[in-house]
Amino acid sequence: MPELRRDPIIGRWVIISVERAKRPRDFKVSHAHEEEGACPFCEGQEHDTLPEVFAIRRRRTKKDKPGWDVRVIPSISQRLDLSGGLDRRGVGMYDVMNPVGSHEIIIESPKHFTGIHELSGKQIELVINAGVRRMVELEEDPHLKYCLLFKNHGLKAGGSKATKHVRSQLIATPVTPTRVKEELRGARLYYKHKDRCIFCDLIRQELDSGVRVVMDTRNIVVIAPFASRFPFELWILPKKHGSDYVNIKKEEVRDLAIVFRTLFSKLSKALNDPPYNYMLHTAPFRRSKRTGYWHTIKEDYHWHIEVTPRITQVAGFEWGSGFYINPTQPEDAARYLRETKVS
Amino acid sequence: MPELRRDPIIGRWVIISVERAKRPRDFKVSHAHEEEGACPFCEGQEHDTLPEVFAIRRRRTKKDKPGWDVRVIPSISQRLDLSGGLDRRGVGMYDVMNPVGSHEIIIESPKHFTGIHELSGKQIELVINAGVRRMVELEEDPHLKYCLLFKNHGLKAGGSKATKHVRSQLIATPVTPTRVKEELRGARLYYKHKDRCIFCDLIRQELDSGVRVVMDTRNIVVIAPFASRFPFELWILPKKHGSDYVNIKKEEVRDLAIVFRTLFSKLSKALNDPPYNYMLHTAPFRRSKRTGYWHTIKEDYHWHIEVTPRITQVAGFEWGSGFYINPTQPEDAARYLRETKVS
Repeated sequence: MPELRRDPIIGRWVIISVERAKRPRDFKVSHAHEEEGACPFCEGQEHDTLPEVFAIRRRRTKKDKPGWDVRVIPSISQRLDLSGGLDRRGVGMYDVMNPVGSHEIIIESPKHFTGIHELSGKQIELVINAGVRRMVELEEDPHLKYCLLFKNHGLKAGGSKATKHVRSQLIATPVTPTRVKEELRGARLYYKHKDRCIFCDLIRQELDSGVRVVMDTRNIVVIAPFASRFPFELWILPKKHGSDYVNIKKEEVRDLAIVFRTLFSKLSKALNDPPYNYMLHTAPFRRSKRTGYWHTIKEDYHWHIEVTPRITQVAGFEWGSGFYINPTQPEDAARYLRETKVS
Repeated sequence: MPELRRDPIIGRWVIISVERAKRPRDFKVSHAHEEEGACPFCEGQEHDTLPEVFAIRRRRTKKDKPGWDVRVIPSISQRLDLSGGLDRRGVGMYDVMNPVGSHEIIIESPKHFTGIHELSGKQIELVINAGVRRMVELEEDPHLKYCLLFKNHGLKAGGSKATKHVRSQLIATPVTPTRVKEELRGARLYYKHKDRCIFCDLIRQELDSGVRVVMDTRNIVVIAPFASRFPFELWILPKKHGSDYVNIKKEEVRDLAIVFRTLFSKLSKALNDPPYNYMLHTAPFRRSKRTGYWHTIKEDYHWHIEVTPRITQVAGFEWGSGFYINPTQPEDAARYLRETKVS
């Protein structure tokens, strides 16, 4: 059985997975190119995946049969499991618990597209709604503390070798991850000091100066952040304050879909379909019931999506220090993307 | 001029470098294979590099001429610069300072080897001594707060395309990086609670159980850490408590050289020369003069080297959460490496 283990020094949790049975010999480095087989995520191949946990379907179509627009299935890697309890325990000086949680794949189109920008705005809205729906459902599980929505596009961004079919992923965990806590803490400190949301201030300053703004719609803004870690790092933020992505408004969904379509078209055109990740940063589950530490989270946190193209290699310096070297000025990246015309 | 910029939310500093002149068009993804040209790091090619800042040389040989065993040169990327002051300043809500610091390459052999395990134990001792010497010299600069010693081996670990010549790197920065602070904080909390060094406790527990021990010499121990983030992650630790790598004893240098040679031979044999990084974690500069926060650092911190093979892809989940999924049990990795015989 896999385990959740905690680093005793900095408190970072790790999922030690054994289900995929990665034995040492599986890691011998090989440069063979793997072939793409029949795609299990295409409409008509539903029998090739685990049973769906949710789908947006056309009327009178059946579960795990064709007729869907967006389909959510459990990941076959099965590192996390919603059954059973946490069983938190110590092993000498170490902390361990059971890998309670969920890992799901959101198949973003029944057709074999590979980039989200190839989908229609309407289809992307359905994708956003499906993600929100699953996050709301996962929050009902009292063991779960956080849900991360993310996308791995391209092999260098951790995308799968088996198929490039367009999808995003959801992982729900029984602990709030360290990176999330770090950001919540930073935002809270600022709020305590200024009585204002740091992200709202940041958006105002960026819109005023304009030099790092990539897109500006009525409800959503895209910037190249001032301290970008990576060339063409981008943050997508709602202009109106909101700590929790699942409370996204209809008009925000519409603008976010347009932003996804346009922004990733620009990125693909400008950089020749680069590998990238995006990660939703949103408030942890049940923040409203929390007391003490998180009590102001509604006011002091602001959901956003971080997009990080994987066009430079992260190396020892970055890993050892958390300090990044970015060879491209965010102002240049923003201007270049603003000037990249897409249809 | 490059800048150091600080993320206002989590306080992470980034070097925005423009000297390498990476413009958007430089990032168009290409799959062309680059050829290795003449190696500028080989003995006899000293004119192809910037002037050396330090070298261990045979008697009566001249600076920047053949006759050296280990040679330290400034990196051509020049992102950091020891001249001038920090000039800390605000830009609206953001913090900026000048990129004061140093980036140096330690050329670990005059001959064209590519892996540290190909060097003799004696040569590796010289490499260790050269690194220590430069760290001590860099500490004399009052602007510098931290020095990170690391290695990028192989392209996927951020190694250079220009030459594979065996080397490590030193980057000295005017701020203590966030990851380092995180670890110092964790170690200090433990010390306050228990009046013992967490790393000393960890070493004792690991030697007692033995299941995650890979090598055990008189002065140095190598373990696969309990909460390994990556398959075959390894920590190299001195058995005797010491917070500061530059105070390493002669007999520890000897054992560390043996460990480097043997461990990286094992890794290379077991995993077919995998890409890897290693990063030295040591106390920040001038810790003895500090008051308050760091005052116990001599007792509560313990230098070590973290080795992270790059055989799995870090993806959106890890980037977004700081939570890692490791498909290999550290106990399996340790056993496999123990059983890998090298000459």
